[in-house]
Amino acid sequence: MPIKIGILGLGTVGCGVVQVLQQNALEIQTRSHCEFEIKGILDRDLHSERGVTGDFLLTDQPNEILQDPEIDIIVEVMGGIEPARTFILEALQHGKHVVTANKDLIALHGHELLDAADKAGKELCFEASVGGGIPIIAALKESLAANRITDVIGIINGTTNYILTAMAEQGREYAEVLAEAQKLGYAEANPSADVDGLDAARKLAILASIAFNSRVALKDVFVEGISKITREDLAYAAELGCTIKLLAIAKHQDEEIEVRVHPAILPNDHPLASVNGVFNAIYVVGDAVGETMFYGRGAGSLPTGSAIVSDIMRIARNIQSSSKSPLNCSCYLDLPIKATSDFHTAFYIRLLVKDEPRVLATLAQLFAEANISFASIIQKPRGEHQAEIVLVTHPCREGSLQEALASVKAYSKVHNIHNVIRFENGQ
Amino acid sequence: MPIKIGILGLGTVGCGVVQVLQQNALEIQTRSHCEFEIKGILDRDLHSERGVTGDFLLTDQPNEILQDPEIDIIVEVMGGIEPARTFILEALQHGKHVVTANKDLIALHGHELLDAADKAGKELCFEASVGGGIPIIAALKESLAANRITDVIGIINGTTNYILTAMAEQGREYAEVLAEAQKLGYAEANPSADVDGLDAARKLAILASIAFNSRVALKDVFVEGISKITREDLAYAAELGCTIKLLAIAKHQDEEIEVRVHPAILPNDHPLASVNGVFNAIYVVGDAVGETMFYGRGAGSLPTGSAIVSDIMRIARNIQSSSKSPLNCSCYLDLPIKATSDFHTAFYIRLLVKDEPRVLATLAQLFAEANISFASIIQKPRGEHQAEIVLVTHPCREGSLQEALASVKAYSKVHNIHNVIRFENGQ
Repeated sequence: MPIKIGILGLGTVGCGVVQVLQQNALEIQTRSHCEFEIKGILDRDLHSERGVTGDFLLTDQPNEILQDPEIDIIVEVMGGIEPARTFILEALQHGKHVVTANKDLIALHGHELLDAADKAGKELCFEASVGGGIPIIAALKESLAANRITDVIGIINGTTNYILTAMAEQGREYAEVLAEAQKLGYAEANPSADVDGLDAARKLAILASIAFNSRVALKDVFVEGISKITREDLAYAAELGCTIKLLAIAKHQDEEIEVRVHPAILPNDHPLASVNGVFNAIYVVGDAVGETMFYGRGAGSLPTGSAIVSDIMRIARNIQSSSKSPLNCSCYLDLPIKATSDFHTAFYIRLLVKDEPRVLATLAQLFAEANISFASIIQKPRGEHQAEIVLVTHPCREGSLQEALASVKAYSKVHNIHNVIRFENGQ
Repeated sequence: MPIKIGILGLGTVGCGVVQVLQQNALEIQTRSHCEFEIKGILDRDLHSERGVTGDFLLTDQPNEILQDPEIDIIVEVMGGIEPARTFILEALQHGKHVVTANKDLIALHGHELLDAADKAGKELCFEASVGGGIPIIAALKESLAANRITDVIGIINGTTNYILTAMAEQGREYAEVLAEAQKLGYAEANPSADVDGLDAARKLAILASIAFNSRVALKDVFVEGISKITREDLAYAAELGCTIKLLAIAKHQDEEIEVRVHPAILPNDHPLASVNGVFNAIYVVGDAVGETMFYGRGAGSLPTGSAIVSDIMRIARNIQSSSKSPLNCSCYLDLPIKATSDFHTAFYIRLLVKDEPRVLATLAQLFAEANISFASIIQKPRGEHQAEIVLVTHPCREGSLQEALASVKAYSKVHNIHNVIRFENGQ
């Protein structure tokens, strides 16, 4: 008896799932020791040509899929919060396992959905919700399960990585590259969720919850986007032997969790520094395994389809052996979230100042009063009587940095604080 | 009831397993929903201080471990072929699951051992046999199971990667860096298995068998070591925007498997090019997922311990749910191995020639007769009347290249063919 699949949504990802199941049917069947059949697909649009065909029901009636007693596994790839949430809850109630690629939903309602899956004795798998085809959820939940994970640092938003890579490689400005990315389909017409860091923050909440076995909510994540990054900053970063990436950083130290998404200056020899274009990578440090990294395409119909079908195959094995996989909720801790003012990082500060004697000495004094010292300094003339200064601090408390910046801002010889960017040395 | 573990061998890796089980006991227990107990350890040496203690039996009598009816899982970390092979077979016969880190044994006798495990209805897990703590076996067997894998390209020998990285970064010679690596413990007194490529070939046979579902034996792998690589070659590679790595390459194309280990010139923008020092990485291409890469420490007691304990936890979940994991033998195909003469790669050829008119034209003619053309050429004066020429060919049949080289060698104006190195562009 084949295992029967119902798919909610026949957009890009839904088509990817159908395509992977069809083109690799023989491999999937032989490796799983069972056959799969797509029984039905739900979509509002019953008529558009999408390049997929098959012997399945295409319907706009949710109950024809959700209540079909023959369907074993529901694949939710419609996206958005509602009705996806309600459909998943109904599917679980009707005794179906669920596979979803929906990061927004898992980040916001993962708790509720995983509890419902537990209660129903069914599985809810979401490998595709973070990092597209990169098997990072399985790595954190299973392959690295013998470790205390201390750091998860990800480049998990392809749009921003495409933009920052193009800015760095071609010396172009943010707005220009964003417009190009929109034209190429790498960025949406309203790019806010990507460029403001929200998409990465959702994925980080999911990764941190799994890595640290403690629920991390979206609201716990400090978020800063990339729109303030200029080509000047990228040029200075290059001068410092670094690049700039939008990093999603989760750390577990001293029984606290620190979660933040922001552009960060990263040394070129860090494994994440050479992750370019639309690629994603997640760098994970565990106390036993040390440094690891998982790299691949973070989006796209086939990479996402790869992750979804591997979840389907995982569920199929458990159906066949009547066992339960370990992929349901594993948040058995309730760790506090570190306050932003307690973050401890180095900073890059780019200032425009009056080119006069003692300005640098005064700046150093203002930072020293907040207990902050410098690791390196670059100064360049800018027109007459002005200088641009880049200060790179040693690691310091974020609260202290904010105090120092307030004093610097009030200092009459400082014309402008152009930018403040965190430094991440990856340790 | 705790799950009881017997360990064969208390060397570096054995101590790593004990340390991981002890230091992360709480996490391991909570995540697995069960307790683990190290019941006994076999080692010939009962007296040396190794920094591990615990409430276990340390014995030099194999049967006290292998025949202990309370032991559920045997961890084989003694290395070598015998008596490891016999001990694993006995353990399986006595109804124990087995976890091993033994790449030599799996590469040579994996077939026999997996069959014995199947017959016994027990599991034989070997995640630690390739790539240390990197979860590459789980990735190939499970997370990427929805893909037809076309390419597996690994940097899977830390010793050679340490040597080539140091040569490239510091412009030093092979012999000097090897001696240093031996002093630091990164290379063995007899470094042959590493520097001649045999260690990487064993691991590649394991990876290729899993990736392509077809048994690849060690003897199938074409092997060439790194001892012929000079600092001149690394300098030319840098001039070409490349670096040199010992790559373990497995490809599945046209229903044939191609498996080869050799130093290769790799463009700097390939994800593997920035894998430096003792780190390992495995780059995998699947038809759905596209390019992926898995990076981490390929050796060491704790990284290897991380992989072994994750295998133990996997088996424990299956013991608890009375199910069988999918990690046993999956070679359901029997694909032919491509002959060396049919390999299709580009080549770097470094020659010393007489600096005379028409020498380059004649060389081009000799290669053209074998249907080989050049992608780039570098020529530099070398003393009086001599020139060093580096030819980079377009991809060609290895057989044709050998024919061309025979003609080149016979050409009187060629004083020496210094080196011939394959080019790998990663596609």
